[in-house]
Amino acid sequence: MAQEFTIIERYFRDSGLQFSRPGIDLGIGDDCALVSLEPGYQLAMTMDLLQEGVHFPGAAPPALLGQRALAVNLSDLAAAGAEPLCFTLGLSIPGVDQDWLQGFSEGLLTMASRFDCPLVGGDLIQGVLQIAIQAHGRIPTGQALLRSGARPGHLVYVTGTLGDAAAALAMLEAPERPSAADDRQSPFQKSRLSSKQRDHFSRAFYCPEPRVPVGVALRGLASAAIDISDGLISDLGHIVAASGVGAELDVAQVPLSGVLRECVKEEAQLPLALGGGDDYELCLTVAPEHCSAVEDAVAALDVRLTRIGEIVSGNAVQCLNNHGEPVTFEHTGYNHFDSEE
Amino acid sequence: MAQEFTIIERYFRDSGLQFSRPGIDLGIGDDCALVSLEPGYQLAMTMDLLQEGVHFPGAAPPALLGQRALAVNLSDLAAAGAEPLCFTLGLSIPGVDQDWLQGFSEGLLTMASRFDCPLVGGDLIQGVLQIAIQAHGRIPTGQALLRSGARPGHLVYVTGTLGDAAAALAMLEAPERPSAADDRQSPFQKSRLSSKQRDHFSRAFYCPEPRVPVGVALRGLASAAIDISDGLISDLGHIVAASGVGAELDVAQVPLSGVLRECVKEEAQLPLALGGGDDYELCLTVAPEHCSAVEDAVAALDVRLTRIGEIVSGNAVQCLNNHGEPVTFEHTGYNHFDSEE
Repeated sequence: MAQEFTIIERYFRDSGLQFSRPGIDLGIGDDCALVSLEPGYQLAMTMDLLQEGVHFPGAAPPALLGQRALAVNLSDLAAAGAEPLCFTLGLSIPGVDQDWLQGFSEGLLTMASRFDCPLVGGDLIQGVLQIAIQAHGRIPTGQALLRSGARPGHLVYVTGTLGDAAAALAMLEAPERPSAADDRQSPFQKSRLSSKQRDHFSRAFYCPEPRVPVGVALRGLASAAIDISDGLISDLGHIVAASGVGAELDVAQVPLSGVLRECVKEEAQLPLALGGGDDYELCLTVAPEHCSAVEDAVAALDVRLTRIGEIVSGNAVQCLNNHGEPVTFEHTGYNHFDSEE
Repeated sequence: MAQEFTIIERYFRDSGLQFSRPGIDLGIGDDCALVSLEPGYQLAMTMDLLQEGVHFPGAAPPALLGQRALAVNLSDLAAAGAEPLCFTLGLSIPGVDQDWLQGFSEGLLTMASRFDCPLVGGDLIQGVLQIAIQAHGRIPTGQALLRSGARPGHLVYVTGTLGDAAAALAMLEAPERPSAADDRQSPFQKSRLSSKQRDHFSRAFYCPEPRVPVGVALRGLASAAIDISDGLISDLGHIVAASGVGAELDVAQVPLSGVLRECVKEEAQLPLALGGGDDYELCLTVAPEHCSAVEDAVAALDVRLTRIGEIVSGNAVQCLNNHGEPVTFEHTGYNHFDSEE
């Protein structure tokens, strides 16, 4: 009968996405999904909206898009130190494109399986392509990593490398830019990237790695954490604001990937790494007495962890060069409403 | 700094929408919201997307829209027998219209306050006007009202009256229709409704009453329940499908409001009541031994409850006239994807 229900059944209910796991008592197909929590746990929840043309290119491959859409939500769970439990999907699509739905569903499944986080419900409507995902996780009561615990003297760390996703966006958007403007606006040294370089950046944007095991390992050790979605300076700014402190960043320490150093103009490297969003690495603060425990725990997970600064008294994030002198950068975060102001 | 955060603070975090209540440990402003459940409870969750031009008219008054957007989600909680706990909001807006945001926020607050259901998080982006709400409720473990418990011999009931919201949609959309087609397509007897009639229909569409107390009272008594969002025949069809049964509807018993009888053409009354959606009344099935308890419990809440049919063996919803003869109606439910097929 209704195609809405057929699509939900084929691509979401019966596609493997709604697998069973402890805690999920009822999934797709009734008025509500039902979830149980063991005593001693809190439920963590986070919602992200993604819209075509704003958060991803119009021609985004559906499988990669599905993977990314769930990954960015799992990243918020990671930043709170929560283990994934289940997710809901509100999907608005312009029409019924079976190939697109198949790919998108498979992309979601890739992430859902890896993080044992089944789909349990949602909604499907016809409209512009927009993806709303709410991810749910569980966390032992009182152990969530918040933004508000940073204190002067705590050290600032980031996982992985920064700037790759912002470079990726420049690469993905390049075909739409007039070629005359390309050379100056492009962050890349050469107008053509090798296919290996393109793959690296494409993965950085579409397949960010939610740092879930890191978040879990940081419980009780990190004093504050956030995932880097808007850009390091902007997101560390949220920690600084919530904690009522300042921060000094040693920009020379900010970790860059080899591929980014290889093909991005030198003057564009730090702006991408400090101001570009979408990397979904974790930024954390740690009291000195916990630093070696944190470094060991993250090393045991084979994740790169770099100390990039220190929390100080104050109310802002200040960037310092390797002579300890303040430096500024033009772009300090992605803001969907900048163009309106 | 970023206008995104200013909007969230002004209209959502500091507008009264994020009030405290037991169970909500952390709301807007961190990577995740944190919720606790007392032992012995399950969490019920439901998400609805609303898009301008599909689910509400383009010129919808923002306060009424806010009220409706939350109400339709609370209605899903009601249909499961859950008590509201909190909600999240994913809001996509084309630009920053302070009056619209103020009105929308106030409309949400009207419903949130009445049902003790604060806002705890979400996302805000720039895009076409689209509203994603996920409502969360709690329910004693194992007591949720499902769609799957109807058995032959159970009686079918509905709360309130049906068809008013569908008539309202015809009224709200009328200004956009060419006047030549109006007379035939309009369900109304006269081309102009009185302001009292207009108010009645406008309220039916924008201010549906989530039947939360009814849902709670039905725990352990109703064998199945659903809220009527797509239309009675379509939604009772979901109960029938989930329960593996059929249903016979005595269409003469379907409750119509006085205003609908007054101003809707006689031949349009039943099609609106049986096929029109958006009423958000509850449809329930009850085993004969619980009927008087259900009737008493709902009467004690001052809610109209009408017996409209019976569950039978079979696999479809059949409409019978007052001679017991099968009748059919053209529209049997709202389907966002009909136009695509």
